Parts: sequence; C-alpha cells; structure tokens
Amino acid sequence: MIILLDMDDVLASFEGGFLDKWRAEYPDKPYIALEDRTTFGLDKQYPEELLDLVRSVYNASGFCKSLKPIPGSLEAVLEIKQEGHDVFICTAPLSHYENCVLEKYEWVEQHLGREWAKKIILTKDKTLVRGDYLIDDNPNIKGIAVPSWEHIVFDMPYNRSVTDKRRLKSLKDWKSLLVKA
Amino acid sequence: MIILLDMDDVLASFEGGFLDKWRAEYPDKPYIALEDRTTFGLDKQYPEELLDLVRSVYNASGFCKSLKPIPGSLEAVLEIKQEGHDVFICTAPLSHYENCVLEKYEWVEQHLGREWAKKIILTKDKTLVRGDYLIDDNPNIKGIAVPSWEHIVFDMPYNRSVTDKRRLKSLKDWKSLLVKA
Repeated sequence: MIILLDMDDVLASFEGGFLDKWRAEYPDKPYIALEDRTTFGLDKQYPEELLDLVRSVYNASGFCKSLKPIPGSLEAVLEIKQEGHDVFICTAPLSHYENCVLEKYEWVEQHLGREWAKKIILTKDKTLVRGDYLIDDNPNIKGIAVPSWEHIVFDMPYNRSVTDKRRLKSLKDWKSLLVKA
Repeated sequence: MIILLDMDDVLASFEGGFLDKWRAEYPDKPYIALEDRTTFGLDKQYPEELLDLVRSVYNASGFCKSLKPIPGSLEAVLEIKQEGHDVFICTAPLSHYENCVLEKYEWVEQHLGREWAKKIILTKDKTLVRGDYLIDDNPNIKGIAVPSWEHIVFDMPYNRSVTDKRRLKSLKDWKSLLVKA
C-alpha cells in the first residue's frame, strides 16, 4: 500500500500551535477553542478585522518548525513503514510559502530523521499524487484530477460534518484502513 | 493534457550555473565543459578529491536562486498554459535541501510570477505524480510506481545514450509531443 499523510493537523499540531501562540501574543483578543472550530482554515472563522494578525502568527518565521507532533502520529508513521508499506508526507505549502517550505523539511528531519525528508511531497494539488489512501484533515480536497486514493478524514472538530468518508481519530488506528468499508 | 516539467536543466540552467561559479571560484581546478559531460549528476564525473568542493558550489546559499533560465523555456511554459494545458513544475530537491527548497520557489516566482509557485510539486519520487508527459533531463527516473507519464528526455550531452525515448531539444518544440510517436 502507498499511504499519503498530510502534515498539518495529522502529523504536526498546526491548530494547537496557532492557539498557543495567539493566546500568548494577543491575550486581549478573542480566540476560538479547538473544539469550537467549525471551518477548515482559521481565516474562515476568525473575524475579518483580526485576519492580518491571525495570518502573521502562522506565517511567522519559526512557527511551522515549532509545531508539536500530534500524539501517536510519529510512532504510527514508523510502524506503517516497518510493516512494509510506502509512506509519503503529502503536504501543501501555505500561500505565504516563505517560511513554511523549508521549515516543513526541518520539522520532518527533527522528528523523524533526515531520511524521512526524502518522503516529503510538497504540492498544492494532492489529486495529482498517487496512493491508496490520503489521510488528511481537510474535508474537501480539491485539484484537477480524480484522485487515485481514498480520502480518509483525519478527525478534527471542523470536519465532523463530513459523513460519507471513512474517518480516523488517531494514526495509531491506521490498521483499520486495511478492513475495507 | 497534464505536462510535468522538471526544473534543473529544463527550466533553470543548473549545469551552466555550476560551471560559471566553479570556474570563477576555482580557476586553477580542472573543469568539465558542458559538451563533455557524460553523467547525470556532476558527482559521478568530477574526480573524487574534488567532490566536496563541487557540492559546496551547488549547495551554496543563493546558487539555485541565481540560475539563469534555459533560453526559450519560460516562454514555452506560458504558451503551453495559454493553449489550455495543465503545467506543473515537478522537481526533486537536492539531498542537501537547506538552500534549494525555498530557492526553487523564489526562482519560479521571480521568473514566472507568484501564481506559478503554486504549480510546484517538490518530490524525490516523480513516479508518484500523475501526468501525460514528464519532460526531464534525467535519463533514468526512478521511483516506486510505474509512471503514468511518458518520459520525454530533455536533450543534454549526458543523456544522449538514451535512444528509446522521445527527445526534446527545446521546450519551444513542445507541440511535437502532440504528434504521437
């Protein structure tokens, strides 16, 4: 099997990292707790007048590199590999690519080792990447092609309205993929 | 059609940029003229004792960003797009990824505009990327999958031993792809 893993909010806690930094840097501004997040992408739920500030937090130098791993994810990546499957980290750069592009490589090297940096596929269009499964928290993955992979929704509060796809609450449960729906 | 374009020595003159910098920085060292290059990858043809120096040139900060466009390539990219095809820049980062990763994005933005940075697919394994054609100077593209694309060899002195694939001498001639072999 070829398993494609999204990075932000599958391997790395982007939403959690944002919330920590946001509350630390702007304690007087309103915030949205993770369980109250209803949209994919912070920009769609934070109020218009805060968007420049919101973006300045997650586009900042060092932000992507500092993200904490999602508990259990790194161990699962190694286990999937060890059981003989091909694993690739299939991740879209932020539109403000200046910091995140290199930091994604550094994050993977830091947490999984340098060899794993070779498994990164950086693309805005994931439908062009071949695989059996793409595990991704984005409920609506767009691109120019009909995907070859089955989209497995990585469970997050903002994607729970999607009910027609298989869902994974933790990468630790990756073997459930092998049981056909 | 989906046309995948390699970056180094299809869009950007990597070999030419290396030779310029090498001769400028190490005028007393031997060099290999482009027409005498017989291997894909400088490492395989420069003598062992010069390899650290060779790598220090192409891995240096600013090297990838400074590469000159291959004449005619940028105009062809825009023309392919204008004629209604999907174009993606499918490029493998150097193993020493620290400088080239971001600089590839910067190069594309500088020469084609920021929107084109969204068309970059950065991957070590190009066989996983779907397309009708991959135009690439690497005569031997390896990966875990059977490619969906036809490999069109972008003509360079070091890939002329390959005779079982179609060959493009200039991206300006991209329309010849439409004529089935």
